Amino acid sequence: MGEFELIRRHFAELAPDGDGIVLGIGDDAAILDVPPDRQLVVTADTLVAGRHFPERTAAADVGWKSLAVNLSDLAAMGADACWVTLALSLPTLDDAWVAGFSEGFAELARLSGVALVGGDITCGPLTISVTAMGLVPRARALRRSGAKSGDWVVVTGTLGDAAAALARFGQARSVPIGTEAELRRRLERPVPRLDEGRGLLDLASAAIDISDGLLADLGHICTASGTGADLEAARLPASPALSVLVPDPMARLRYQATGGDDYELCLCIPDERLVLAMHVCALTPIGRISQTPGVRLHALDGTLHSFENNGFDHFA
Amino acid sequence: MGEFELIRRHFAELAPDGDGIVLGIGDDAAILDVPPDRQLVVTADTLVAGRHFPERTAAADVGWKSLAVNLSDLAAMGADACWVTLALSLPTLDDAWVAGFSEGFAELARLSGVALVGGDITCGPLTISVTAMGLVPRARALRRSGAKSGDWVVVTGTLGDAAAALARFGQARSVPIGTEAELRRRLERPVPRLDEGRGLLDLASAAIDISDGLLADLGHICTASGTGADLEAARLPASPALSVLVPDPMARLRYQATGGDDYELCLCIPDERLVLAMHVCALTPIGRISQTPGVRLHALDGTLHSFENNGFDHFA
Repeated sequence: MGEFELIRRHFAELAPDGDGIVLGIGDDAAILDVPPDRQLVVTADTLVAGRHFPERTAAADVGWKSLAVNLSDLAAMGADACWVTLALSLPTLDDAWVAGFSEGFAELARLSGVALVGGDITCGPLTISVTAMGLVPRARALRRSGAKSGDWVVVTGTLGDAAAALARFGQARSVPIGTEAELRRRLERPVPRLDEGRGLLDLASAAIDISDGLLADLGHICTASGTGADLEAARLPASPALSVLVPDPMARLRYQATGGDDYELCLCIPDERLVLAMHVCALTPIGRISQTPGVRLHALDGTLHSFENNGFDHFA
Repeated sequence: MGEFELIRRHFAELAPDGDGIVLGIGDDAAILDVPPDRQLVVTADTLVAGRHFPERTAAADVGWKSLAVNLSDLAAMGADACWVTLALSLPTLDDAWVAGFSEGFAELARLSGVALVGGDITCGPLTISVTAMGLVPRARALRRSGAKSGDWVVVTGTLGDAAAALARFGQARSVPIGTEAELRRRLERPVPRLDEGRGLLDLASAAIDISDGLLADLGHICTASGTGADLEAARLPASPALSVLVPDPMARLRYQATGGDDYELCLCIPDERLVLAMHVCALTPIGRISQTPGVRLHALDGTLHSFENNGFDHFA
């Protein structure tokens, strides 16, 4: 079985005649329609086995996650997810593995309304590169650069789950399956916050997705906006699973503040729009944008927390 | 030096404020303008060291070629090349190698008017995945599926050079440097036929780029169009370098008919438009589309040539 047969067998259902697809997979390139009132939003991210996910991660989870991390970038722009290309590098033509991968990839693609429009499978160490394309109403995309002093800093969902799950992965299971599974699902099946991003299009002044860790990613917003930020550690949202599995408050805070892979959104919202924004979707205010450069995490006693590493370096 | 610094240092000049770029590299995603009278054309191709190019290929040539193979797909659709994303996986953070790679990549990007709008560098075996985006006048893109019985089959440039160069690569240099270098350049620095593709937009009935070999790629046109083709071996164009370096006519024919990596275009042109098409750009007619399925390569004596393999299988 060659490359073409493998693609035909496992990825055909991923490439339907969807919205805006004039010509899908099967020619030299796909042809796509971009409505005149929209702009194209494009992002690309790669996952490498053993680096961005544990080697023994289930194929379906790898498929889901390789798409999720890219759709999360579209969510951070407030874009609708539309089309993706996939470059899959595999050590061997393992039919069962590809079937699992495409199942997880397809599951999230269906949920997000995304169609596969191109790509290839090559032989090599397990690496997945996805380029995701979305559409956003003209001139209304969210950016990193719009934060203003006084804006609220808010996040979707809860923080630190994925990093805690990654740290526990492979350890003896001394906790209930249910809670452990809940935490692990956050690592393996992150849900890109597409609805939230879209819903906050005209409300947020800046946005980013939390892939490298809250402090690092909020730092990118502050750098791009020429601002700083003051956060209150006690306000960082924790899931019940994280509270149970990581009872030590300082260990938990470290996961929440510096753990990557949550794929929640961190947004800045002007004061007068906060109430409206919190009606659009569930958000937790965690601090304020400030004129003083740097991101500071305040403890209840007025001291500042500091951590050795603020985020994830892909070559660390 | 981390990933961000490496990208900033070597790829910044590749990401200018170009045509249609509302927001380039540096946010979660790029924002791009697609004019209302255009459609978006998207393709993705991956190169793996040791498989798609010899391990010791110069970094600049790898950079050039990883872009060229993708732009060649856009050329086959008759599209203007506009934007690319790049996923570069590197065994080590080799600054000199990345500098060379980006130089070759940038050289072709400049020549083709292409801007880098996203991507990442990860640690892993040397693999390069590019997604290329282009624009084509609405409803006028070239496809594989439009060939009609009686159409001429034509090719741009010459055939077999890249395959011959690949076969000789690493052998003792028993021929003049000049001719050898000429042939090798065709392997390492293929020039995507963007002008030709665009120029033939309303003249060709079908098109494909020759990446897997003439017979295999023309076979894709015939399958998509529900036709066959009859080619005359004596008409296949050979470069002077190929004629000198591969004097045996049968060996030469095998390179021309089945060798991949030429990145010339193979197009079908209705009889009444052939003369006009040949005024637009240099083309060699090599045969005709037929109602009888299959691609046949006729010898001067009326017999048919046949080859063990008609093309390149990426898992062979």
